Amino acid sequence: MPEPKLSLAEIQSFCSRSPYNAWLGVRVTAASDSGVEIEVPWRAELVGSPDLLTMHGGVLAAVIDVAAGLSLLAAIGRAGPAIDMRTDFHRAVRSGALRATGRVLRTGRTITSAEATVLDDAGRLVASGRAVYFTAET
Amino acid sequence: MPEPKLSLAEIQSFCSRSPYNAWLGVRVTAASDSGVEIEVPWRAELVGSPDLLTMHGGVLAAVIDVAAGLSLLAAIGRAGPAIDMRTDFHRAVRSGALRATGRVLRTGRTITSAEATVLDDAGRLVASGRAVYFTAET
Amino acid sequence: MPEPKLSLAEIQSFCSRSPYNAWLGVRVTAASDSGVEIEVPWRAELVGSPDLLTMHGGVLAAVIDVAAGLSLLAAIGRAGPAIDMRTDFHRAVRSGALRATGRVLRTGRTITSAEATVLDDAGRLVASGRAVYFTAET
Amino acid sequence: MPEPKLSLAEIQSFCSRSPYNAWLGVRVTAASDSGVEIEVPWRAELVGSPDLLTMHGGVLAAVIDVAAGLSLLAAIGRAGPAIDMRTDFHRAVRSGALRATGRVLRTGRTITSAEATVLDDAGRLVASGRAVYFTAET
Repeated sequence: MPEPKLSLAEIQSFCSRSPYNAWLGVRVTAASDSGVEIEVPWRAELVGSPDLLTMHGGVLAAVIDVAAGLSLLAAIGRAGPAIDMRTDFHRAVRSGALRATGRVLRTGRTITSAEATVLDDAGRLVASGRAVYFTAET
Repeated sequence: MPEPKLSLAEIQSFCSRSPYNAWLGVRVTAASDSGVEIEVPWRAELVGSPDLLTMHGGVLAAVIDVAAGLSLLAAIGRAGPAIDMRTDFHRAVRSGALRATGRVLRTGRTITSAEATVLDDAGRLVASGRAVYFTAET
Repeated sequence: MPEPKLSLAEIQSFCSRSPYNAWLGVRVTAASDSGVEIEVPWRAELVGSPDLLTMHGGVLAAVIDVAAGLSLLAAIGRAGPAIDMRTDFHRAVRSGALRATGRVLRTGRTITSAEATVLDDAGRLVASGRAVYFTAET
Repeated sequence: MPEPKLSLAEIQSFCSRSPYNAWLGVRVTAASDSGVEIEVPWRAELVGSPDLLTMHGGVLAAVIDVAAGLSLLAAIGRAGPAIDMRTDFHRAVRSGALRATGRVLRTGRTITSAEATVLDDAGRLVASGRAVYFTAET
């Protein structure tokens, strides 16, 4: 894989300094010049539906946001605030670690768009989505 | 306000049985036949950006999802799994409780769409969004 | 209604100079400082489904884009390129003029978000959506 | 490429029976069991911005919808009404034919999600997006 703009260790360090990402336990497992791979362990507090015992949609959205957002560090070397985000829920998650891939789709002068896909521990697609970030150099 | 399909206490009970909603501390403050109002207190773990100390986008997405999802209980009397969700981030949040309003936009035989807006403790719009839920009676 | 930044006649003129809007026959029927109302007549070429004879989703998306985009002229006095757009399809349209309302949700230094709703000629909600525009002054 | 559920000629025939697709001049150029490729010729009525002479966002959204929608025919052998659609605009288009690829992301019992990417005649990414369709067998 071509080299990322920031090293995997630098991206992990940035990620872990985020209190919410630290609470989620996000681990950055790969980085290239176009994006990242992350892992998020299961924990009981991630359950959303009290009856179906499935992971909360907001947590899956957060995983999309983390993977897409960190892909900016790998691809352009800096982060930026999200303008909007879209999440598609493909399959309920009831247990197990998640693996997500974030990838920059297009970098413009002021806007960078990225996408992410989330797999469960059996490798099945459980969520995917996109976000647009404000990344003008200031 | 016209009566909701489930009472405020029933909606609060459903909400609090969700481990992630309980972790977020979601309080349901109003319910009508078209939607709900909720409050989410500030807590340090909700910070996303390690440098800007702003609330994580995934948390704001979760608040959108909770408000939109609970509006289904109020408007049609049952919940359902989300198919997809969109979140617009309007303003960074650095502290204070959030107040969100969820409202059903359209109920069909199998699909219900809802929208939500999130205000900070100064009453400013900080995020808004929409979600579509699968709500066919089974 | 508070005065729009551009007059209704100016917004109509801007709209009609767009070849695609002219093809759609978009008529601007109201403007305030927060948005616009438009009408789009029915025409046979707008049908998408060959079997259901329903309006093409891309046409409804275009109507969302036109209403949301023109609301910027009314609210901030200038247009800008769209960054992204979401369209929710609530009900099939088989005939009759459409009426749409566009409204600015939030104006920032570089980004403006707007929403639009589309009604059929019986006043029923048929589509709604949101778009985000790049509106930095240059 | 593995065989599509409907042949390329069948997909083209379905596509061309749609009045709006016929107006757009959509040509189906490839089909596999996961999706389709289409081409849309330039025409003057597709211009949206009267000043920048760029293609209308609603037309790009329509191209996304056509490519994503036809990918259902190829992948599962039937179409269905769109529930919602998201379009990201990556680069302005000022002339030339568009080429788009549509691909099914996930097929469920009632919902199918698909994505599409649109390239200009120089092969540059100009738009991309996703749509969710109601595809329950009736």
